[in-house]
Amino acid sequence: MKKTYKVLFLPHQKEIIVNEGEILIRAAIEAGVHVNASCGGEGVCAKCRVIIEQGSIEGGVSERLKQEDIQKGYCLACQAKIRSDLIVRIPVESSIDASVLNQTSTPRSKAEIQHFDLAQLKEQGLYIPPVEKRAITVNPPSNEDNVNDVSRVINGLREAFDEHRLEMTLQTIQKLPDILREGNYSITLTLNRPVREGRKSQIINVQAGNREEKHYVIAIDIGTTTVYGELLDRMTGESLASYGDFNRQISYGEDVISRIVFAEKGDGLQKLNKAVIETMNDIIQKLISRSRIEPDDISTITIAANTCMTQLLLSINPRYIRRAPYVPAASVYPPFNATNIGLNLPNHTIALVYPCISSYVGGDIVAGVMSSGMYQSEALTLFIDIGTNAEIVIGNCDWMTCAACSAGPAFEGGGVEHGMRATKGAIEDFSIDPVTYEPMILTIGHVRPKGICGSGLITILAVLFENGVIDQSGKFNTDLNTSRIRKTNDVYEYVLAWATETQIDRDIVITEIDIENLIRAKGAMYSGYMTLLTEVGLTIDQLDRIFLAGGFGSYIDLEKAMVIGLLPEVDPQKVIYLGNGSLQGAKMNCLSNHIRQDVKETVNKMTNFELSETPSYMDNYIASLFLPHTDMNLFPKLKQRLALRK
Amino acid sequence: MKKTYKVLFLPHQKEIIVNEGEILIRAAIEAGVHVNASCGGEGVCAKCRVIIEQGSIEGGVSERLKQEDIQKGYCLACQAKIRSDLIVRIPVESSIDASVLNQTSTPRSKAEIQHFDLAQLKEQGLYIPPVEKRAITVNPPSNEDNVNDVSRVINGLREAFDEHRLEMTLQTIQKLPDILREGNYSITLTLNRPVREGRKSQIINVQAGNREEKHYVIAIDIGTTTVYGELLDRMTGESLASYGDFNRQISYGEDVISRIVFAEKGDGLQKLNKAVIETMNDIIQKLISRSRIEPDDISTITIAANTCMTQLLLSINPRYIRRAPYVPAASVYPPFNATNIGLNLPNHTIALVYPCISSYVGGDIVAGVMSSGMYQSEALTLFIDIGTNAEIVIGNCDWMTCAACSAGPAFEGGGVEHGMRATKGAIEDFSIDPVTYEPMILTIGHVRPKGICGSGLITILAVLFENGVIDQSGKFNTDLNTSRIRKTNDVYEYVLAWATETQIDRDIVITEIDIENLIRAKGAMYSGYMTLLTEVGLTIDQLDRIFLAGGFGSYIDLEKAMVIGLLPEVDPQKVIYLGNGSLQGAKMNCLSNHIRQDVKETVNKMTNFELSETPSYMDNYIASLFLPHTDMNLFPKLKQRLALRK
Repeated sequence: MKKTYKVLFLPHQKEIIVNEGEILIRAAIEAGVHVNASCGGEGVCAKCRVIIEQGSIEGGVSERLKQEDIQKGYCLACQAKIRSDLIVRIPVESSIDASVLNQTSTPRSKAEIQHFDLAQLKEQGLYIPPVEKRAITVNPPSNEDNVNDVSRVINGLREAFDEHRLEMTLQTIQKLPDILREGNYSITLTLNRPVREGRKSQIINVQAGNREEKHYVIAIDIGTTTVYGELLDRMTGESLASYGDFNRQISYGEDVISRIVFAEKGDGLQKLNKAVIETMNDIIQKLISRSRIEPDDISTITIAANTCMTQLLLSINPRYIRRAPYVPAASVYPPFNATNIGLNLPNHTIALVYPCISSYVGGDIVAGVMSSGMYQSEALTLFIDIGTNAEIVIGNCDWMTCAACSAGPAFEGGGVEHGMRATKGAIEDFSIDPVTYEPMILTIGHVRPKGICGSGLITILAVLFENGVIDQSGKFNTDLNTSRIRKTNDVYEYVLAWATETQIDRDIVITEIDIENLIRAKGAMYSGYMTLLTEVGLTIDQLDRIFLAGGFGSYIDLEKAMVIGLLPEVDPQKVIYLGNGSLQGAKMNCLSNHIRQDVKETVNKMTNFELSETPSYMDNYIASLFLPHTDMNLFPKLKQRLALRK
Repeated sequence: MKKTYKVLFLPHQKEIIVNEGEILIRAAIEAGVHVNASCGGEGVCAKCRVIIEQGSIEGGVSERLKQEDIQKGYCLACQAKIRSDLIVRIPVESSIDASVLNQTSTPRSKAEIQHFDLAQLKEQGLYIPPVEKRAITVNPPSNEDNVNDVSRVINGLREAFDEHRLEMTLQTIQKLPDILREGNYSITLTLNRPVREGRKSQIINVQAGNREEKHYVIAIDIGTTTVYGELLDRMTGESLASYGDFNRQISYGEDVISRIVFAEKGDGLQKLNKAVIETMNDIIQKLISRSRIEPDDISTITIAANTCMTQLLLSINPRYIRRAPYVPAASVYPPFNATNIGLNLPNHTIALVYPCISSYVGGDIVAGVMSSGMYQSEALTLFIDIGTNAEIVIGNCDWMTCAACSAGPAFEGGGVEHGMRATKGAIEDFSIDPVTYEPMILTIGHVRPKGICGSGLITILAVLFENGVIDQSGKFNTDLNTSRIRKTNDVYEYVLAWATETQIDRDIVITEIDIENLIRAKGAMYSGYMTLLTEVGLTIDQLDRIFLAGGFGSYIDLEKAMVIGLLPEVDPQKVIYLGNGSLQGAKMNCLSNHIRQDVKETVNKMTNFELSETPSYMDNYIASLFLPHTDMNLFPKLKQRLALRK
């Protein structure tokens, strides 16, 4: 457990609990306390001056502060680490009318985070590993007993472990005679279990001596942009190494569609396949060297990816994915040897690939659903994975329905003038002084800003809207008295950071066109949930839970996402961050066979809707092209807050 | 049906039925009529002069015959093809006492030849192919039905053929999207059936259009010396091409033991593996080009080989085969993709390898047993495959027992001064004039002799023994008045051909040392049968049938083999030539799954005896080191003939 401290902000009288070492400005923003700040947290604008009235901080002193101010307790909030309970006063020059503040901003809702619990699974008796190791010692052959090596070993497994229905792979037979004698008739066999009980187990490897405890598996999530890998101890479920890298296919196209277009030309498919295999091999190599294990002890690699990434990984022409009627090659893929697709792993390592539901609801979503556990709960659940495409699953243990909608790349920075990926220098948090309309910006890495990342865009949009800087249709209120709002090339925009405060020598702005694109993107998603809910005869208030999956999902400020109508307005307590559900699902798949059985059932249970073919989708979409929606009754709490503000 | 003619030999009054076009000297030898002949059939010694009294021949005229003799009807028997019924007189200069002749020689026993009968199998309802093709046409995907390609095809197979429990290989999925559309949704699937019903069928290939009728399989017999292949139409069982070649491993060692020794050194195993794979690839290439089929239509290759050849084929270290307690790596091998071991076949072609019983009773013997059908018959059967090692199987549908004995290479020409392989110029047949002891030799290819092949050695030994030239212990009767028997370097020998009559500029002889080696070889085999029979409590006269397998087995003169005690004396009607039982079994395996099921049961049923570990074997061996055996009562008919002769 991390140490936590209480921070009380005055004069707002707002209190928040934060982790030891948290940056003070982050605590302020999470408490809904505005402090002007324009350098992103680098400490150079010196606008975020606060007074420490009680408690101790580390850092926060700057040459930009006068000596006398330092003696009075002033510090820069963006430079101060919290080291005890604190009482912090926002000084007069930054002070605002607390009553307004209370109306417009509330502390952040922290959503529950889902974890995969191997111990729980073991307790429930559901822990059936897909691959197991068995160490045995057999009698050496003699004149009286000169049965062949394979039969000797299979008999040994039967006697020691009551194993039946065994078959040895040719690769294992090839090694067996020498290893059996090298181990002086003590060996460890690796058994690949069938998904269904009663089928044959395959003996896929043999090692000299007892190596039962040395057993490792790798889980991989292949995203369109990034590939993550994790190496786990199969015995304990413990993660020994993890590593992520950009998918090298990026150089052939940013998104799924441009990859498919590339794959259709000449040897495009081979190039894309090679790129992702190389990315994976690099990650695998890093995982192995960091965890210092013997590669021969890796029995399984499980992979989850969207449908296009899955087909490119397996060298399957993806052209029919992007053409109506949008047909993927397969749903379920058989297990195969990892070396068959060029992975640098031992030739016995089994590769398991998550099944895909449709062309746009892929293995990453199935993996996420498995990792969420929604398939085994009665709770009515909305599962959302937000990215260029938003994938949506609604259902519970009895039924499930899914769809994908193309939201466009706006939340990933595409079609947004200063949009960028969530890397160093991206504005990720934002607040506004409701009187002066001066911004408070925080960047990733606490450096001067370069642009705005997805979670930043959501927050900016929500804050601008709640403070009346933009209206329901995303247009700027040009009556406001601030130089931050201006017109450039006939388009209104709000200046987040002046050129001198940035790394890019230009003002960083958000324009009405950016906002239009963002509204279209969130509208596509919201109409997706609504269409799917309507198709199954449900309404938002009937939802018991919402799972937010995807790396991006984890950074979303729930309340802000509800303000702009990116998420339906529900009790934040119902929302659960899943993190990388795809990687999580891949990890579960290589640890428990139970999941593999459930996956098949879940995939069979899942009904896919093609939203583009569902008539109500377009109506829902049109209705969603407002902040948060044309029907404010869908957002009762926001409606109430806005009414109060007026 | 070949045309046959009757040939009557005078003055012997012996009649024989022969095929149209048979060489007259061959007819004589098969009728047990001696004609002096020393050039092997090349027509240069001109000793085999006979008179055609009635009927017509082709050829037989030679400048070595005087013009007046030709007018009298003289011809050279070794040059004359039979073109009608004939009456042939052996002239005075070659004439011998017919009464003696009758005692010493009888017409050859033609054994029944076993054939694999696909029609019969179909009639019995036992024809379940291991791999089948299914052509289907499915509906193209639409907005209402955009299920993935794999599911579309699997649903199509279920609807059209009531197929269930299907799984598609990754290789097939990789091709499916394009081929489905190339074939305009009409495709042909190749289904690999499980050995046991109820297990999954694998879809291993997809082709555009209807190719149900284009389905081919290859059967291969890998012998230590030769490799035979046959390409069959899977629909009809018809053989479309066959080809045999020497196993390229020969350059690394002649026999199994020398190969194992070679395999143990450095990269010996890889070299031997490469040699046999190259041999097979050459054969496969020839089979494909000769039959003019599309390689993509080859679904299966079945392989039968002895245990050592099997392990070398699969790159499995064979060192433990030749060391006590003689342990092979495996009995049953799983099916695998032919490309996995480097065969030049499509990557979907399934390779099936016959299981081995023990280190010296291999897949070739199991294949032979399957091809003989003895495993499903109640008839008590002795199955023998004669080579360097003789493999013996005794049993019927209820039980089976097997053993191998190392006979040594004598019958393959090893340890015999003028021994050679059964190639052109090898003496393969022999007769002796009981008065003059002049020989009649016939060579393969009817050319001047170069040496003696295995079947020739058996005949020579039998003829010398029955005519009293050698005694029961294989020693020459030096009292005989003939220059053919002489002593060279203190060893007695019989001159089969004088240097001038040979291709090798030396006299071709058979020596007492040769004869000793041959007696040891046949003694090893005979004591093998006897030991195995005794172990199961049976005697020779209880045997209902004897199967003779192996290329060599087919050339053996049954009666002669019984004279020397290489075979037990039974009614020749009980003996069946199996031909290449190994290849035959491989063919059956790729045509009928029924056999694959039976193979497993047969292998499980079979009890292996290590003769070297069976105490009675040595006693039996010692007793067998005579012609035909110390106990003449085991050879009652021969005993009677010998008594008559005296």
